[in-house]
Amino acid sequence: MLARRQRVLAPTYRLFYEEPVYVVRGEGVWLYDAEGRRYLDCYNNVPVVGHCHPRVVERLARQAATLNTHTRYITDRPVELAERLLATMPRELTSVTFTCSGSESNDLAVRISKVATGRTGFIVTEGAYHGTTETLSRMSPVTGVATAPEVFTVEAPVDIRGPTEFAERVRECIARMRSAGVQPAALLVDTIFGSDGVASHPAGFLAAAAAEIHAAGGLFIADEVQPGFGRTGEGMWGFQRHGVVPDLVTMGKPMGNGHPVAALVARPEVMGEFARQHRYFNTFGGNTVACEVALAVLDVVEQERLIENARETGAYVQQGLLSLAKRYPTIREVRGAGLFLGVQLASKDVTTRVVNDLRRAGVLIGAAGRNGDVLKIRPPLPFRRGDADVLLGALDGVLQHLG
Amino acid sequence: MLARRQRVLAPTYRLFYEEPVYVVRGEGVWLYDAEGRRYLDCYNNVPVVGHCHPRVVERLARQAATLNTHTRYITDRPVELAERLLATMPRELTSVTFTCSGSESNDLAVRISKVATGRTGFIVTEGAYHGTTETLSRMSPVTGVATAPEVFTVEAPVDIRGPTEFAERVRECIARMRSAGVQPAALLVDTIFGSDGVASHPAGFLAAAAAEIHAAGGLFIADEVQPGFGRTGEGMWGFQRHGVVPDLVTMGKPMGNGHPVAALVARPEVMGEFARQHRYFNTFGGNTVACEVALAVLDVVEQERLIENARETGAYVQQGLLSLAKRYPTIREVRGAGLFLGVQLASKDVTTRVVNDLRRAGVLIGAAGRNGDVLKIRPPLPFRRGDADVLLGALDGVLQHLG
Repeated sequence: MLARRQRVLAPTYRLFYEEPVYVVRGEGVWLYDAEGRRYLDCYNNVPVVGHCHPRVVERLARQAATLNTHTRYITDRPVELAERLLATMPRELTSVTFTCSGSESNDLAVRISKVATGRTGFIVTEGAYHGTTETLSRMSPVTGVATAPEVFTVEAPVDIRGPTEFAERVRECIARMRSAGVQPAALLVDTIFGSDGVASHPAGFLAAAAAEIHAAGGLFIADEVQPGFGRTGEGMWGFQRHGVVPDLVTMGKPMGNGHPVAALVARPEVMGEFARQHRYFNTFGGNTVACEVALAVLDVVEQERLIENARETGAYVQQGLLSLAKRYPTIREVRGAGLFLGVQLASKDVTTRVVNDLRRAGVLIGAAGRNGDVLKIRPPLPFRRGDADVLLGALDGVLQHLG
Repeated sequence: MLARRQRVLAPTYRLFYEEPVYVVRGEGVWLYDAEGRRYLDCYNNVPVVGHCHPRVVERLARQAATLNTHTRYITDRPVELAERLLATMPRELTSVTFTCSGSESNDLAVRISKVATGRTGFIVTEGAYHGTTETLSRMSPVTGVATAPEVFTVEAPVDIRGPTEFAERVRECIARMRSAGVQPAALLVDTIFGSDGVASHPAGFLAAAAAEIHAAGGLFIADEVQPGFGRTGEGMWGFQRHGVVPDLVTMGKPMGNGHPVAALVARPEVMGEFARQHRYFNTFGGNTVACEVALAVLDVVEQERLIENARETGAYVQQGLLSLAKRYPTIREVRGAGLFLGVQLASKDVTTRVVNDLRRAGVLIGAAGRNGDVLKIRPPLPFRRGDADVLLGALDGVLQHLG
């Protein structure tokens, strides 16, 4: 299968792990390979309510058998979903647009920001990843693509200790931008800074940073593609931990538990300015099936109390990681909130080895950070204490073996 | 529902028709509204094998219950789908990349073209639509967004009579581009020119146009998002009618019968150059469920002989439209291939009235063209002679009533 894959898929494709995993089945927090071996999934945030959740699959199938059409007819599902999403948001955010992917949502957020402010400058973090489109690839330095001339980078807040350190970096970046003759349209950040290596504390630091961009006449865009849908354990959205109200919120990956559905939520004055000048139609965005699946995901998050579980099990995993940190000096820091955790290790080499050794031990995680030296732990949210014990035990074994 | 919709969805949303349709169910070539009234769908190309096709839904549901994961693990579905797609293509095209939407595919095609050629100039038609991303919105003049400085427009071939007229326009456009100091990276066209008002004949004119861009060192990108998957009745892809081999082929809308799945197929030398400099990962692109759905669609297209039906029923509809043209002078021209037809009317006002009157008569079509004066007829492919008679009868009635 690997040889066939390499023959027909583009050479841009990459596989995880030195020994890639051939996956044939998923259930809850487990993935199964072709030989029936199971792997504890501590990496995939997309299946947020667990792989192949039966109630989500059932509603997907029922809706797909009934109607799947677009938003140029009146249908009830996109309206119901928009209402449900807005109910989770601060009241200042009132306007929903559906897309297919986090990339499409972030790309639209950039378009809207430019039109609403009449400006062109964007601030992103040094290890940011915001999507695959041409515009976003030039705002995603972690991919190695050169940033666009009007995109300025700020050091990610992975190392800060105080609530205003990141805001100071943003202020300095705005000054740098202005001295290059560019006016700031927006500060665009993943509110958990996943690709930067996870930055979570002190909660509130994003409010100070948003105040800086607002003072400079720019917008604050919260990219919730990674932290959204309860993962951080303290509410539905990562920005809520920081007590800040964004101008634009983008979401994607976990929204449909794997079904391609994404959205952008906006303040009405920001969206209104864009709407006066532009239309926007997305063929698949807001289609009946995608919306029904997203509604099912919201129901399961609520019914299974997954936000509470993210907080409680996340705290338990964090505690276990801190215990390991006392025994293994290669662990330099444990960061994160809920079930989005970053473990800062001594080097990229150690991180690569740990990730691959864990895979051999049947536990799937990944690496993150500008230097690739952070373990990224981000399991489906029905991840329980017993699962955490499997992860912590395997990590203990791998670190012990590292010597 | 309309009031609720307007409260929560962004003001960029637009509905079809003076009296919008509230759709609750779809089956085959029919859509049903909340009062149980049915509408013959002569517009939607996305449900290419018919709304809610039971075999597609069944395979969607089965795969969604088994595994839905991404391409950084080995899974069989994307490999099988890539093999199936390549089997429908000229042998020069060997490299597949999956995305979620036609927009993502076209945006990637632009990125690849720039890297592969080291150039920045693009040629699109005056009424082109290629997608919603920032980059593509500036290559989609039909939306009203100003084209980017390095995007040049060429008059669409809706009025040509000879096989080289469009090529001459492209040559002139390349000269215009070069005198502005821009080098051509690619000619990007929808191979049926849907948003331009449908341009289909004389078949072969795209080969001459592609020769022009190749002679200038640029690439030829076939946007198959509209014509692809058999609609033109003479093969799987619109470019095949023209006897041309593109450098890049993009596809989307009908690929998953409404499920968000799309792709880009490339010559290996073009993709290889991009891959040497860039990676590309698309979270939902090539996921197991999307690929299984697309495989199901390909199976149904084959098993139900839908390409043959597009050719035969398309010819029957075209014949009927030509008969109506003899009786109603407001019909100026009938263009198209298979089940993608454009009917040139006398004015935008007449077109708007016909589209709305047909909707009242229970037949759904749309308008197209830079001037909005073309009826766009583009039904799901299981559209049979009996359905054609309903469409033609309703159009006859509407035109008669116009007076």
